[in-house]
Amino acid sequence: MLTLNNAIDLLQEFAEAHPFPDAPPELYEPCSYILSLGGKRLRPALAVMAAELTGGDPRQALHIGWAVELFHNFSLIHDDIMDAAPLRRGQPTVHTKWSLTTGILSGDVMLIFAYRHLAAIERESAIPAVLRVFNRVATGVCEGQQFDINFESRAEVSIEEYIRMIELKTAVLLGGALEMGALATGASAEDAAHLYDFGRLAGIAFQIQDDLLDTYGDPATFGKQVGGDIIQNKKTLLVLKTLETAPANDVEALSYLLSTNHTMDNDEKVAAVRAIFDRNGIPAIIEEEKKKYETMAFAALDLVNAPQERKMVLRSMIDALLHRQK
Amino acid sequence: MLTLNNAIDLLQEFAEAHPFPDAPPELYEPCSYILSLGGKRLRPALAVMAAELTGGDPRQALHIGWAVELFHNFSLIHDDIMDAAPLRRGQPTVHTKWSLTTGILSGDVMLIFAYRHLAAIERESAIPAVLRVFNRVATGVCEGQQFDINFESRAEVSIEEYIRMIELKTAVLLGGALEMGALATGASAEDAAHLYDFGRLAGIAFQIQDDLLDTYGDPATFGKQVGGDIIQNKKTLLVLKTLETAPANDVEALSYLLSTNHTMDNDEKVAAVRAIFDRNGIPAIIEEEKKKYETMAFAALDLVNAPQERKMVLRSMIDALLHRQK
Repeated sequence: MLTLNNAIDLLQEFAEAHPFPDAPPELYEPCSYILSLGGKRLRPALAVMAAELTGGDPRQALHIGWAVELFHNFSLIHDDIMDAAPLRRGQPTVHTKWSLTTGILSGDVMLIFAYRHLAAIERESAIPAVLRVFNRVATGVCEGQQFDINFESRAEVSIEEYIRMIELKTAVLLGGALEMGALATGASAEDAAHLYDFGRLAGIAFQIQDDLLDTYGDPATFGKQVGGDIIQNKKTLLVLKTLETAPANDVEALSYLLSTNHTMDNDEKVAAVRAIFDRNGIPAIIEEEKKKYETMAFAALDLVNAPQERKMVLRSMIDALLHRQK
Repeated sequence: MLTLNNAIDLLQEFAEAHPFPDAPPELYEPCSYILSLGGKRLRPALAVMAAELTGGDPRQALHIGWAVELFHNFSLIHDDIMDAAPLRRGQPTVHTKWSLTTGILSGDVMLIFAYRHLAAIERESAIPAVLRVFNRVATGVCEGQQFDINFESRAEVSIEEYIRMIELKTAVLLGGALEMGALATGASAEDAAHLYDFGRLAGIAFQIQDDLLDTYGDPATFGKQVGGDIIQNKKTLLVLKTLETAPANDVEALSYLLSTNHTMDNDEKVAAVRAIFDRNGIPAIIEEEKKKYETMAFAALDLVNAPQERKMVLRSMIDALLHRQK
């Protein structure tokens, strides 16, 4: 069974063998640029590993993996425009480095190239099923992005709505990568569906972990500014849980801190919000919520008809990612 | 054989039976809105008519036709952002009525819905071939848009480059509609390819006609402001042909008129540019160029293996569109 790093090496080789066309450079250079900024390549690796898990040839899932990676990067280009983000992984975003027009059009063609890779898989008979999964997932990601935008300006967001948003915006693509990797290499629809659930549920757990680490992560290893969500007044799961469970005075205090009606400095603000979370036991509640999805994810993996020792590779990899050091 | 109007009626019925989802409305209402602004529905009608021409069931090409129409409207939403256009068919453009974010995201999901319709055709075995045609055409449209953008800021554009740009930006989608409509309903790859050429070549002829009508059309029937291209200093085929064939003094005069270094009013400017075109015989040269593509288009249609009387319906329809009254 391939390890994550083996899968990533295969993908790197594949990407080098499948560059974007040279012309027009104004259209394709930004596509190569965003890919060159790095990223873990976790999504495409999952497609490749799912293929091998279910007895297929992992190399036959490379087009699927790359389609997923291109889709992910298309969504980054367009999301960065919508968020007016100047930087992505420490480098200028596409619309900042080039222009709004370039960001829109290069993103569009990158999405179309994702579909080109779907159409290029070796097992022709799997294309219709793979295409339908891709379409379902891609639609979900757009809907998730819309819900995320809507929630910014809404006074109240339920925890159920929030989980549904992160599920659509990020988790379904992890599930889709696994499902399509399996389908493209001959797995049964049932096994592919269980793998989808595994990825989707693990993806929700990842996202919950991200919310936790943003406030409680180790500044030395987190990679982003710890407390960033608080500084930006984001309605994370920690905030929503506090609003739902804390006594009225803490709810009021949190609402005040996350409004723009005060002049507290950022360090003070992060400390004050964290104190509210702490005295209401929010970190433990959120850990519990994450654990719930993690358990459901592994239960879905258990249902896949594949040798235990192969499943262990995938399980231990996801387990490691879900228990990164704070 | 269905007439154009029969095909449009079928499409209208199909569209009503396949609305966008209700939620999130912020995402899907703009998609319904742009479709509600009208348009001739010529592209999807071609898909339906191609199916019947080659002996298939035209109803089985409705998903294809609608995919093409959604793709076209996706490209309108995004192009309107890139062109900073406030109006589309006399109504506010999506990004003007809503926001930049809405324009980007609703356009994206509309493109994905085009692919959903491809995946929904009845003849499952045709999906891979149809998907590849769609991807090829969609890539071409993005490249054509990029070339169009590049040409705006370039001093010299050859006629060959210009024809290639309009071919990619608008003509390949007409060809693709015909090719996919045929493929989806059981036509041979050869017949589908001839239909692609027919649509592509006719599409180039249409676009050349558009350039002509923009300067020489009848204001009563043209629908847009006659002379609009001249007022906007566009490098149309008329301009490029003049730069290529006219004597130096006319080339100089035209370059001056189409620069922003003078204060001539629009009516004067249009009249002066038209006078240069006229004395260099440009309208006749351009008519000739259009005729060349028209002839090649009908020659491609002749190669399709289908009953003459069915081909006549398509031929006379395209002929009528290519000889709209000036």
